[in-house]
Amino acid sequence: MTQHVFDKAIALEPSGIRAGHFTGTTSPDYWNMVGPFGGTTAAVLLQAVMRHPDLLGTPIALTVNYASAIVAGAFDVQATPVRTNRSTQHWTLQITQLDVAGMPQVTTTATVVTAHRRETWSQNDVPMPAAPSPGDVPALSVGPKGVAWIDQYEMRMIHGSVPAVWDGTGDHSETRLWLRDAVPRALDFPALASMSDMFFPRIWLRRGRVVPAGTVSITTYFHADAAQLAEMGTGYLMGRASGLQFRHGFFDQAAQLWSETGALLATSNQIVYFKE
Amino acid sequence: MTQHVFDKAIALEPSGIRAGHFTGTTSPDYWNMVGPFGGTTAAVLLQAVMRHPDLLGTPIALTVNYASAIVAGAFDVQATPVRTNRSTQHWTLQITQLDVAGMPQVTTTATVVTAHRRETWSQNDVPMPAAPSPGDVPALSVGPKGVAWIDQYEMRMIHGSVPAVWDGTGDHSETRLWLRDAVPRALDFPALASMSDMFFPRIWLRRGRVVPAGTVSITTYFHADAAQLAEMGTGYLMGRASGLQFRHGFFDQAAQLWSETGALLATSNQIVYFKE
Repeated sequence: MTQHVFDKAIALEPSGIRAGHFTGTTSPDYWNMVGPFGGTTAAVLLQAVMRHPDLLGTPIALTVNYASAIVAGAFDVQATPVRTNRSTQHWTLQITQLDVAGMPQVTTTATVVTAHRRETWSQNDVPMPAAPSPGDVPALSVGPKGVAWIDQYEMRMIHGSVPAVWDGTGDHSETRLWLRDAVPRALDFPALASMSDMFFPRIWLRRGRVVPAGTVSITTYFHADAAQLAEMGTGYLMGRASGLQFRHGFFDQAAQLWSETGALLATSNQIVYFKE
Repeated sequence: MTQHVFDKAIALEPSGIRAGHFTGTTSPDYWNMVGPFGGTTAAVLLQAVMRHPDLLGTPIALTVNYASAIVAGAFDVQATPVRTNRSTQHWTLQITQLDVAGMPQVTTTATVVTAHRRETWSQNDVPMPAAPSPGDVPALSVGPKGVAWIDQYEMRMIHGSVPAVWDGTGDHSETRLWLRDAVPRALDFPALASMSDMFFPRIWLRRGRVVPAGTVSITTYFHADAAQLAEMGTGYLMGRASGLQFRHGFFDQAAQLWSETGALLATSNQIVYFKE
């Protein structure tokens, strides 16, 4: 069996230098305009936690801060469990790359909370929006040139697709879509972390205009355990994202990801830089 | 002029040991059930960034992870600018307290992004809900015994107040209220960080039942600059919060804070532990 392209992209090698220290390499398959797709970077960080020998439980919360662009090539990840309680564990993480002088520079910081999950009362107060079934929604054709990562996903736009014409007449910022890996892959936490960042910049939709934009910080909350994710298999997820406040060069986006049967698997928020 | 109780609570002393290292003391005035009010802790962390000599710009994003309860008494804060770009700056922070053996233990981790703000296109896509004016909404009387922090705020509940009877008949988790400091204080970033965490646990409202609950991680995005905050003065803010998914001992909450005139000043999300 050949390795899935996503598993290749988030592959980490323990360095042996100290616990939680790994090396990896950026993936051309998930390249974005000026660096790796931020979703892949989030997945790499979560993967470092999940491969740590001292891991307790499964991911509950992930915050990733994109401090600077990661350049193509090798990087280091350090995942440190700074506090382990009876049922929760708190992690701090950094990705570093060597600069031209051979000095490690921080490109990305992150925090993760993991926890033992247990059965409790449960309630979903954000039901999945009604939608035609995935087979009845056309798949988006290939993405813009030089943006490789988009081709790794199958996106079927239900509402708020990328504008066909950039005429400056946008009037909302909500996208709803069916999505899954282009090459089928069973859902897991790194995949969910990555998919939480897969919406094109809300400001493009809101303004009907392309302006430079990039995620500065993303926070994702996970509402499923490993067994639930495994049940999803290679099925579709429904994703929804919308912008909230655009001002002073930044806007925030709220997003949700449901299973095809309507289970809310993750909620995610991010703040995004934009120009003009 | 006497010092405001909130300024006393978030007061930090540079230790002189290294840049960004401060000492502080927990405030009995903002005590919660088993530790300081989480909003005050968030404000202390933000304050450490704002008092750092190398600060660039003003806060954009703040994530605080409550790794363990802070005990009454002294604590240390370390704020480190790990990456300074042309217009953004990335921070990592920790609060530590000495354990019985005199060893520093991490109680809280955080990341902050600060940035130079500049005029751009702007748009608020989450308008403030309609509401009677603050004077027409009765103020909440004193909070539960032993929970000091609630008395530091004036809360005028518009919708979804703390249930008067815990009869297990809750059917939603949305609260809307007017709020401000009980003793007037001009709005600033630490105050906004604190107020983002001031909603009682959504699960109490959703279930009409008190269960143990506590914030695990909170992320707040700031949409105002210092000048805008100063304009707010000591006016009311409208706060709204609702729960999203409750499952496996955790739920997430989305919150917004508007100025009295409807400017969206901050959006905030948190994930909260609950028992049963």
